[in-house]
Amino acid sequence: MTATPPAGSDQQRRIEDELVRTVLASFRDTPDPRLKEVMEALVRNLHAFIREVRLTETEWEHAIAFLTAAGHLTTDRRQEFVLLSDVLGASMQTVNVNQEATADATEATVLGPFFVDGSPEIPLGGDMASDAPGEPCWVEGIVTDTDGNPVPGARLEVWEADEDGLYDVQYDDDRLAGRAHLFTDDQGGYTFWGLTPTPYPIPHDGPVGVLLDRTGRSPMRASHLHFKAIAPGLRTLVTHIFVDGDELLPSDAVFGVKQSLVKRFERQPAGTPAPDGRALAGRSWSRVRFDIVLPKASAAEGDDPVAVRA
Amino acid sequence: MTATPPAGSDQQRRIEDELVRTVLASFRDTPDPRLKEVMEALVRNLHAFIREVRLTETEWEHAIAFLTAAGHLTTDRRQEFVLLSDVLGASMQTVNVNQEATADATEATVLGPFFVDGSPEIPLGGDMASDAPGEPCWVEGIVTDTDGNPVPGARLEVWEADEDGLYDVQYDDDRLAGRAHLFTDDQGGYTFWGLTPTPYPIPHDGPVGVLLDRTGRSPMRASHLHFKAIAPGLRTLVTHIFVDGDELLPSDAVFGVKQSLVKRFERQPAGTPAPDGRALAGRSWSRVRFDIVLPKASAAEGDDPVAVRA
Repeated sequence: MTATPPAGSDQQRRIEDELVRTVLASFRDTPDPRLKEVMEALVRNLHAFIREVRLTETEWEHAIAFLTAAGHLTTDRRQEFVLLSDVLGASMQTVNVNQEATADATEATVLGPFFVDGSPEIPLGGDMASDAPGEPCWVEGIVTDTDGNPVPGARLEVWEADEDGLYDVQYDDDRLAGRAHLFTDDQGGYTFWGLTPTPYPIPHDGPVGVLLDRTGRSPMRASHLHFKAIAPGLRTLVTHIFVDGDELLPSDAVFGVKQSLVKRFERQPAGTPAPDGRALAGRSWSRVRFDIVLPKASAAEGDDPVAVRA
Repeated sequence: MTATPPAGSDQQRRIEDELVRTVLASFRDTPDPRLKEVMEALVRNLHAFIREVRLTETEWEHAIAFLTAAGHLTTDRRQEFVLLSDVLGASMQTVNVNQEATADATEATVLGPFFVDGSPEIPLGGDMASDAPGEPCWVEGIVTDTDGNPVPGARLEVWEADEDGLYDVQYDDDRLAGRAHLFTDDQGGYTFWGLTPTPYPIPHDGPVGVLLDRTGRSPMRASHLHFKAIAPGLRTLVTHIFVDGDELLPSDAVFGVKQSLVKRFERQPAGTPAPDGRALAGRSWSRVRFDIVLPKASAAEGDDPVAVRA
């Protein structure tokens, strides 16, 4: 990539070019070649940005103040820099470049901040919602590799927000609900009960919220249910499924939506019998099918350490 | 600027391009056109960086952890994000784009973190070092505009580190030394006593220090003496002068050096009479000349509010 020609005279351009060369040269003795490559690309793109917009000193001060405020808000429970990366699409683009598209494999999307290790195991057909409030949702599908072979014993981690738009870890009472893991059967099939996904805002009471507000953007995420699929010899998949018809699909705050991940959640009126005969106490429910196709892992990736059933 | 073509298939490229377009489109309703322009350029350059280096998810996590550590270290007295901007040359490039080169005007450089308002006034020939330890240095010059007219009454702010490499504000005892302001005489001339500049490291006990260490870079700044020149109708100049022969000139940690700002500091053996007859108690001293040329202020800039003598 070449630097963007700046505004102004030849003399001015020469001064700006010279600075970029000097900064790049300062990394010449970096022992780790990958770190050198990343820093050089960072410098080239950062300087291209400053020169392209002719960043004012006041704007530079605003940027420093923004990063400072984000840093001061960030704790173990609140990560404003991840939110910033999310709303700029940087998190999603990082997912993209690490999950090279394979014609028939299921697409990946962002992990998000609410995955936690150590979810409880549920049997096939079990309830991952636990006590989380919301409309029951029957989820079923099959896991195969890209040759169409079923993948028995694949580990599926699933997690989602409750109908109030909150994950269990966002409550102060140490509850564990709306998350679980299960394993596919001998034919690669799986079923479980969850909740019909509902939309929720990303935290927007900090500098990222101010940025969204000033740029006319919504903090809302489209309704979704998270999956992580892990199987030996296959590439680990982190993804969501989204709800067909959700009006937030085109404006998802973190750009996580991919068309192939939008699924029909079929609403079932109260009284409709459940597939497994579960007593639903006269409530409505929904059902969705999500078949997952995993490509072979590259040599570099190896098996995920938790791919083997405990 | 066009996006860098990523590695991989057409399908992969299409997915990455599509994400960039979607993120750019999310800023379409930004009310402030300048904010829209800056955010769009930021998104284009940030995504170009991620795609160009094929940023791994582990590297992304390191970046988030780096920013978090920088944020937690930053206080009213320590600004790790400014240091980061400095060592990437972003501060200097911002100075460059805001001080368009003018053939015969004195060049600008970074302000640095150690300027503070409210310096004491000294008369012409006065001592700005006060009690700061170091070798005395006689500084003289003339301030003119780009037509060669002397600028009487120009306000010069001057500040520098002591011979231990520390500015007054880096001590805990509220001392005030090594900083002052003075005004040019009727012919635009000025003289003062300061200290022969000595090198010092930028703070390098935080994440920026780790970055410098891992990339084989030195935290040292070349020896320098800061100036800020302010006069009605002329562009305010923030600059340094550097010491000819300083071995740190080519590797200044913040890229502040410009060749035109490197000056001969002439060493004077002990016993050499001072220009103003000052008694130097048998010590060596140095002298330097720095003539300052200020261009006309653009209409947008207006006068600096402190340009008028109090």
